Amino acid sequence: MNTPFRPGLTGSRLDRADQIRVKDELLDEVRGNLRARLLKLNDLDPEINPDGTLVWGSMADRPDDAELLFLGLDDGIPCFAPLIENQPPAGQRAYAVWRHLDIMPPEEASTYAAARSLIEWHRGHLFCSRCGTRSALSKGGWGRKCPECNAEHFPRVDPVVIMLATFEDKALIGRQPLFPPDRYSALAGFVEPGESLEGAVTRELFEEAGVRATSVRYLTSQPWPFPNTMMMACIAPVEDDALTLDTEELEAAKWVTRAEVQGAYDGAVDAAFIAPPHFAIAHTLLRAWVDGK
Amino acid sequence: MNTPFRPGLTGSRLDRADQIRVKDELLDEVRGNLRARLLKLNDLDPEINPDGTLVWGSMADRPDDAELLFLGLDDGIPCFAPLIENQPPAGQRAYAVWRHLDIMPPEEASTYAAARSLIEWHRGHLFCSRCGTRSALSKGGWGRKCPECNAEHFPRVDPVVIMLATFEDKALIGRQPLFPPDRYSALAGFVEPGESLEGAVTRELFEEAGVRATSVRYLTSQPWPFPNTMMMACIAPVEDDALTLDTEELEAAKWVTRAEVQGAYDGAVDAAFIAPPHFAIAHTLLRAWVDGK
Repeated sequence: MNTPFRPGLTGSRLDRADQIRVKDELLDEVRGNLRARLLKLNDLDPEINPDGTLVWGSMADRPDDAELLFLGLDDGIPCFAPLIENQPPAGQRAYAVWRHLDIMPPEEASTYAAARSLIEWHRGHLFCSRCGTRSALSKGGWGRKCPECNAEHFPRVDPVVIMLATFEDKALIGRQPLFPPDRYSALAGFVEPGESLEGAVTRELFEEAGVRATSVRYLTSQPWPFPNTMMMACIAPVEDDALTLDTEELEAAKWVTRAEVQGAYDGAVDAAFIAPPHFAIAHTLLRAWVDGK
Repeated sequence: MNTPFRPGLTGSRLDRADQIRVKDELLDEVRGNLRARLLKLNDLDPEINPDGTLVWGSMADRPDDAELLFLGLDDGIPCFAPLIENQPPAGQRAYAVWRHLDIMPPEEASTYAAARSLIEWHRGHLFCSRCGTRSALSKGGWGRKCPECNAEHFPRVDPVVIMLATFEDKALIGRQPLFPPDRYSALAGFVEPGESLEGAVTRELFEEAGVRATSVRYLTSQPWPFPNTMMMACIAPVEDDALTLDTEELEAAKWVTRAEVQGAYDGAVDAAFIAPPHFAIAHTLLRAWVDGK
């Protein structure tokens, strides 16, 4: 596919083969396939080969207490992830896995993202939110069903906007209190019920930094499995550069030039900030702005 | 804000005032404000004035068994929606309310969309999905908290892609079995865990119609409160026009020309199909394609 952007965590080779999920006999068939592969995980973190590719075992490696999530077909070979349900969800903070993402090819990280988000969703949704009964995995792992009220539940994906406010020849970056030292990124926030993507960008920029967007341009997107968001990157010119920070969300924010962003990407000793890692869409977004895309 | 598109259900006048949600004393203040307004609803459907604007009552109209959802401030006036919890969620099908949406200004429908989605979310999420305990409304209605395991839950927004596959001078429209007679629309589907927006468009077009996207261009978005999606409209040129339909998702699909879409919008007696209503983003999307945007 032609695309002007190549965000990290996209381009999985797996065919999700959704027609298999909904038919018990097809699910039995892929589970029984002797070539079927099981993703090797240390709890939620991936095992990876020296070249950054994911390590897969055989179905014989399945832990006794693990359910199976059908991830899809890789060139016809069924691929699964193991779900050990009774572990607490890890949630948003997962910097340890970033070391792995740093060396994983985007298409491998993309497969991993789907597995991790699915596992996290099951762990946080073992009970029916309508009636409180313990629910059961369904659709090969792409749903849960309540045996009491029959409600079906599907894995949530939280849409998140991540945006670069721009004014004249500068762009706005900020840092959250929990970021590593000197790391800055684009501002971001969850889309709320009743909002459009453009509405969420406008609201978040005003809430967090006190700047008013005059337009919103969508660039590209990526999944982010911490725990289950889809990040949508936008550029938004704003009315002026006066900032009013929400200090609970942002520890600091500042306007940077294209040369300063390039300096951060080059790892210059006097860089204005430390850039987001290459696999985060904030990296793609800042790069697109520097390149004038 | 400058925007080339004006989808329905966008542009609410309300300031969501998120700083109020998180402070009990501020919530008490807006609840006690004598000018505060309560949205008038018939169960989930809006009461509307002859000009299509929403009807608001005073806080004295609050039903005894209703909790309050703080929608935001309208020119400083606190606005609420009533939540009667013990009603089943209505879910996806809600054609009755379309009569109202037909005459509501987009910014009024936008306010209504937020209220409806929030109410629906609470009704479907009364119990903690982590431990099964009955949870309690929090953050003025923008969350629920479990008294047992302390898990916090936030209203879900399901990202949905809606896309026009194009080939040469034609665009692909389809109809679901439950559509009114002769109604066609753009193809659509939920974004799944581990997917980008572009990945979801590509997968859905192939799953539903057997066509392969060569690129994906995002146009615009809207909230859709049946029950809680954000619709993101895209145009995707495809490799060829041979169709392989998933007949469980689509009853029929066909390629139409710009003149045929224009005929549908004009309500021509020999129109090729009945167009989506003006407040649905499929309408905006087809319009944009006809206009060459």
